[in-house]
Amino acid sequence: MTKTILETPYGTRDFLPRSAANKRSVEQKIMQLFNRYGYEEVVTPTLEYLETLTMGSGRSLEPHMFKMFDRNNRTLALHHEMTTPIARLVSSRLKDEPMPLKLSYNTSVFRYEQTLPGRQCEFYQAGVELLGASSTAADAEIVALAVEALRSAGLDEFEICLGQVEFANGLLDQCKLDLETQSEYKSALETHNIVRLERLVDGLNLDGESAATLKALPYLHGDRDVLNRAGRSANNDRSRRALENLTEIYRLLESYGAADKIKFDLGLIRDFNYYTGMVFEAYAPGLGYSLAGGGRYDHMLKDFGMACPATGFAIGIERVLIARKRQGLIEDARARDVYVGYDGSKIGEAIEVAKKIRAEGKVVELALAAQTEEEAREVQQSKGCAQLIYVG
Amino acid sequence: MTKTILETPYGTRDFLPRSAANKRSVEQKIMQLFNRYGYEEVVTPTLEYLETLTMGSGRSLEPHMFKMFDRNNRTLALHHEMTTPIARLVSSRLKDEPMPLKLSYNTSVFRYEQTLPGRQCEFYQAGVELLGASSTAADAEIVALAVEALRSAGLDEFEICLGQVEFANGLLDQCKLDLETQSEYKSALETHNIVRLERLVDGLNLDGESAATLKALPYLHGDRDVLNRAGRSANNDRSRRALENLTEIYRLLESYGAADKIKFDLGLIRDFNYYTGMVFEAYAPGLGYSLAGGGRYDHMLKDFGMACPATGFAIGIERVLIARKRQGLIEDARARDVYVGYDGSKIGEAIEVAKKIRAEGKVVELALAAQTEEEAREVQQSKGCAQLIYVG
Repeated sequence: MTKTILETPYGTRDFLPRSAANKRSVEQKIMQLFNRYGYEEVVTPTLEYLETLTMGSGRSLEPHMFKMFDRNNRTLALHHEMTTPIARLVSSRLKDEPMPLKLSYNTSVFRYEQTLPGRQCEFYQAGVELLGASSTAADAEIVALAVEALRSAGLDEFEICLGQVEFANGLLDQCKLDLETQSEYKSALETHNIVRLERLVDGLNLDGESAATLKALPYLHGDRDVLNRAGRSANNDRSRRALENLTEIYRLLESYGAADKIKFDLGLIRDFNYYTGMVFEAYAPGLGYSLAGGGRYDHMLKDFGMACPATGFAIGIERVLIARKRQGLIEDARARDVYVGYDGSKIGEAIEVAKKIRAEGKVVELALAAQTEEEAREVQQSKGCAQLIYVG
Repeated sequence: MTKTILETPYGTRDFLPRSAANKRSVEQKIMQLFNRYGYEEVVTPTLEYLETLTMGSGRSLEPHMFKMFDRNNRTLALHHEMTTPIARLVSSRLKDEPMPLKLSYNTSVFRYEQTLPGRQCEFYQAGVELLGASSTAADAEIVALAVEALRSAGLDEFEICLGQVEFANGLLDQCKLDLETQSEYKSALETHNIVRLERLVDGLNLDGESAATLKALPYLHGDRDVLNRAGRSANNDRSRRALENLTEIYRLLESYGAADKIKFDLGLIRDFNYYTGMVFEAYAPGLGYSLAGGGRYDHMLKDFGMACPATGFAIGIERVLIARKRQGLIEDARARDVYVGYDGSKIGEAIEVAKKIRAEGKVVELALAAQTEEEAREVQQSKGCAQLIYVG
């Protein structure tokens, strides 16, 4: 026997009973919340045609996909996120449904990447997509739902960084940058590479005010007051509409009771080829990666033949579990209520006793061999069952 | 745009909201039942090393696996069943836990096969493994749990075909068949190929009684009386112990209130290289495939370096959903309780109303744009929401 057969592949992991119970508990709470908001679960295959996945975010993420050939030599890939498969589903089998459509999912997704704390090659997500609604009310519902989902998972210490890609797009137009330079600038902004961003701006031969505006963008983050500061540098309609959108989202989040979790970050643009409006990420103190992220992506469904505004987000389940642990929320979601032991001849009676207690919804472990009462008590205690019933 | 990007790969499928809700409802009921019996959920990766999977049933099923290379050129495969991954988990990270171990799972598994009704390349299973218990009480618990699981999924019309591979093994020894011939005979028996089985026996030059015994085996199925008939042809200890095991399992199933679902089938041996004791399959009337199957596999964990008796079963979730439909159990597990519409200026108030009703556990869909009361009523009715609340 080689050691190998006992290992899981690179970047994958097992969930033992305790962590599996925590995972299921968090997933159930989040999915029940989504359901109460009217988001209905869908399930799509783990495998998709590569051609489908590269229609969405897969264009840039293709090198990170797990790929294989089917028996007709077509390339399949393990889904690397769920927005693209849901866009496929909506554009085919749900295209005649009345809009808006509210859908949710809970599954694992796959990306071949170097593993880090909070980053695995197979990881678990729950999320929602809201299709066919372009209103600010839709944006606000999505952000509120993210806040509620993290709260329902037991987290209290977290914040949402809220941005709007159109604010940056407007500034880039205002400063009259050509498309290639815009793309370079946004790439530096997306990766938070301030050195590269400032060097780029310095090389552009802009007037002083434009250069200052572009250099200031990464620093436009903080409380609601950021929107006022940002308004002063935005002398164009696109940026102003973006700020109005954020102002209105914030106002609605106050009604949702979620505004206390909101910080603004106008340098946040996420995948800039993909998002078209508000974007957000959720962070917990001390964790160097986001717990959840999403935004508006009004152009993606066009690639599937169906023009349709859309917004949504995904939560990283394992990251939420790590944040819970850091915040001292270490609970054992497993319950072991009763251990039923029995004397040699009494197994039939013991089975009936166990059955009755299970019918009350309790977790009952029945002995699988006859025991003395002392032996049964030892097992009960070693298994951490709250109660012993001995049929003697 | 090509049509392809809207398709799912061969043998895979989407679950739209209605069927996804039924799937989740059935899975939850089954997993909750497993939990009440003390079976704790574990989660293993979707991908395993091929070397791991071929330790168990993968030896014969390898041609049906979805395989790919990792970045170190090692072969990975999508798990094709869950017993082998759980054996790996138990032999590594759970090997020092007190026995018996009771584990459960709920996931999709993958086999590249020609699709038929009830057979997909990606399909969903829930199941249990009971490790470290060799008693008949353990066998009976597993069969009882299968009966209860199908009942908890709402099915009433089904039966369990119960066999014991040691009965056939004893007969083959008794008739003094060499190992190669035994293997051929069992292969014919496993595939229900009576013509091939009788031709094989006829070619063996056996005494009349032995030939008759071997030819009669596929017909030893029916009620409890089969055990008496079978006893008359079994003149060896192995077969007799197998019948005692079945008799005792049946007696315990009476205590469980599950005996009414039991038929015996001594020709049932399932994968004969794998199972070592009782085996069973569950069938519903009119469906040409089993809903669930399992049995005792006392040798498999040895390959992972840990000698350990084991028994378990898996349920095919989609097959259960098909059987439910056939038996008229067509329910809509989705709930849409309240639609909240609002007048232009009242969105903040409407958000607060929606929040309050959701806190009561109700499913509330909030309008994403202002509507007149008539418009709101139309949407409420088209969405099938039970109640309209209009904030005007």
